[in-house]
Amino acid sequence: MNSNTPEPITQSQLLKVTEPLPLISGATLTEYELVYETYGELNAEASNAILICHALSGDHHVAGVDAEGKKGWWYDYIGPGKVVDTNRFFVVCSNNLGGCRGSSGPTTLNPHTGKVYGPDFPIVTCKDWVQSQDRLRAHLGIEQWAALIGGSMGGMQVLQWAIDFPQKLRHAIVIAAAPRLSAQNIAFNEVARRAIMSDPDFHEGRFLEHGTTPKRGLALARMLGHLTYLSDDMMGSKFGRELREGKLQYNFEVEFQVESYLRYQGEKFATKQNFDANTYLLMTKALDYFDPAADYDHNLSLALAQAQAKFLVIAFTSDWRFSPQRSHEIVKALLDNDADVSYAEVTSEHGHDAFLLPNAHYEGVFSHYMQRVYEELTCLEKQA
Amino acid sequence: MNSNTPEPITQSQLLKVTEPLPLISGATLTEYELVYETYGELNAEASNAILICHALSGDHHVAGVDAEGKKGWWYDYIGPGKVVDTNRFFVVCSNNLGGCRGSSGPTTLNPHTGKVYGPDFPIVTCKDWVQSQDRLRAHLGIEQWAALIGGSMGGMQVLQWAIDFPQKLRHAIVIAAAPRLSAQNIAFNEVARRAIMSDPDFHEGRFLEHGTTPKRGLALARMLGHLTYLSDDMMGSKFGRELREGKLQYNFEVEFQVESYLRYQGEKFATKQNFDANTYLLMTKALDYFDPAADYDHNLSLALAQAQAKFLVIAFTSDWRFSPQRSHEIVKALLDNDADVSYAEVTSEHGHDAFLLPNAHYEGVFSHYMQRVYEELTCLEKQA
Repeated sequence: MNSNTPEPITQSQLLKVTEPLPLISGATLTEYELVYETYGELNAEASNAILICHALSGDHHVAGVDAEGKKGWWYDYIGPGKVVDTNRFFVVCSNNLGGCRGSSGPTTLNPHTGKVYGPDFPIVTCKDWVQSQDRLRAHLGIEQWAALIGGSMGGMQVLQWAIDFPQKLRHAIVIAAAPRLSAQNIAFNEVARRAIMSDPDFHEGRFLEHGTTPKRGLALARMLGHLTYLSDDMMGSKFGRELREGKLQYNFEVEFQVESYLRYQGEKFATKQNFDANTYLLMTKALDYFDPAADYDHNLSLALAQAQAKFLVIAFTSDWRFSPQRSHEIVKALLDNDADVSYAEVTSEHGHDAFLLPNAHYEGVFSHYMQRVYEELTCLEKQA
Repeated sequence: MNSNTPEPITQSQLLKVTEPLPLISGATLTEYELVYETYGELNAEASNAILICHALSGDHHVAGVDAEGKKGWWYDYIGPGKVVDTNRFFVVCSNNLGGCRGSSGPTTLNPHTGKVYGPDFPIVTCKDWVQSQDRLRAHLGIEQWAALIGGSMGGMQVLQWAIDFPQKLRHAIVIAAAPRLSAQNIAFNEVARRAIMSDPDFHEGRFLEHGTTPKRGLALARMLGHLTYLSDDMMGSKFGRELREGKLQYNFEVEFQVESYLRYQGEKFATKQNFDANTYLLMTKALDYFDPAADYDHNLSLALAQAQAKFLVIAFTSDWRFSPQRSHEIVKALLDNDADVSYAEVTSEHGHDAFLLPNAHYEGVFSHYMQRVYEELTCLEKQA
């Protein structure tokens, strides 16, 4: 999967949009910024562009290595000679609106008040993200994406793109996603939100003004999130009932390795990674609201009848957050429309996290599909 | 399942034990109290006694109706003419040590200090509970229980009884349990504990001295617990994506019915039911520590080789907290010992909670087994 081509240090860019963006909630963003990174070169026909959509805690730094030496969150899959080959494709990834890594969101300045938005940043939905990403597309001079790719919440954005802008993407790659959250999914999100909002340091979202952050709540939310990303089997094989100190201590300190791992993940997220609590809330709400079929009489087949893209759908056997059954719903709705759809059910013990991890079957399916996307591109060039 | 026999108002009794109880943790309770209720009459041979072991948030009020009109937590299954027929059996249930409903625990007075134990109440394990329950057995003049019955954490105590006091029970009924917690089970407990312990009102467990309770943390713990008691399917059929206000509000108030349900459960537990946070911590730790095979070279078959009781094991198809696979482990270990074991895998969509709910298959298996226990009893009487 790796190559010896040296990768340049990635640099983020900023798009300032002054055209107002009306949101699904009824609010309007009169202006906003999107931070993004690009990798590879856009060809003369502007036909080789790929948009990567990120998941809950992701950002625009998806590939390469940044100035601080930090690898992109999908580094192993995107780059020169990799599954998504930046020698062939011009890859774009932006931080979602409401994020906390540079795009307009709760930690950026509200132009109307001159203060950070905090909890006043409006509720955003997948549909809003897709609209904002379409402005980035236009800015980059791209008429049609060669492909959109996303895992988890990223896959949901890809689905929304295929429905809302059917002619602006040739391929939709939807990984470890679902056509809408189940009651259980929403319930997990709600517990995470309650953890954040009931932290006394939350101050109704105005924690930055109080010079603090709801670290405890955010750490809890992340611990819970992690729990749902991992499979029971994987936790069993990785941690089992292994003890941290070799023998039981019979106290409330960490006894089992799995406790230590989760506490570490929670604390890292809330302190070292400094993720914004309001962003966490917004992202989970966007997940809850995602339900493209709702606009089409709750009929997913009808919703996807709009789509013109070719689809690759991938699910992982041990993913209980968005199980293969949820991908089956997507595939069945596409088949109802006789769409061009490939589907792979990949055996993995890594749960929802599998979409970020090495796996020969997954890489094989994914890279062969990308080869198809590339060959189509070459064909298009010859036609032109 | 119901009968017209009027049930007397239940009254709790208190056993004061002055003989010290050495605990697995190394600590010793020099004296303690157990609160318990009994239903039905102990026969002359003292052969018809049944001990019910309670689960995480349960208590000694398992059957009948108390002076406040509150039904026991297993009211539908225990009483005159019911599955566990109190016209036939003398049923006993005590609040576990470390509990908060009357037995010695974090909310009772530490005789050495004259102040409430709070966080100083020692860590207790299933083995300790079984030892304390055995003192109650002796106090009641019972040589051998006709049966021990427990669901979830209660089932674990039944297993421990069968191993530690093989001759003191004739039947062991283990429902919706597991022979030990998985890494995922422990992880859920750890998130719940962190929610409680990171609540600023926790005060390192000395919240009562501070005139407060960690309500937020306890509510979160309960919400999370509830999530794991219910199946994805059941939440889907009960709540789906039904909206609370009929249409989306796009704010951080409750949007979906499932959110409303969970918040209500959490708040009820932390305020109205006034469950003690230190007890919650102790119960989850006892669950984590439960691992009877660990004393037998991690070989459950070896551990259960001690058992002489006859077993009924019941699991529910949609229980993902303690799935049927976990009951299979118990049944297989019993079969390794050619034990007398009946097993039922009951189809239910109610998840872990199914053990408390009406279900014809479950009731049929359970009551026929109880008929067997009763007939054996009659046979014993004739022999005597």
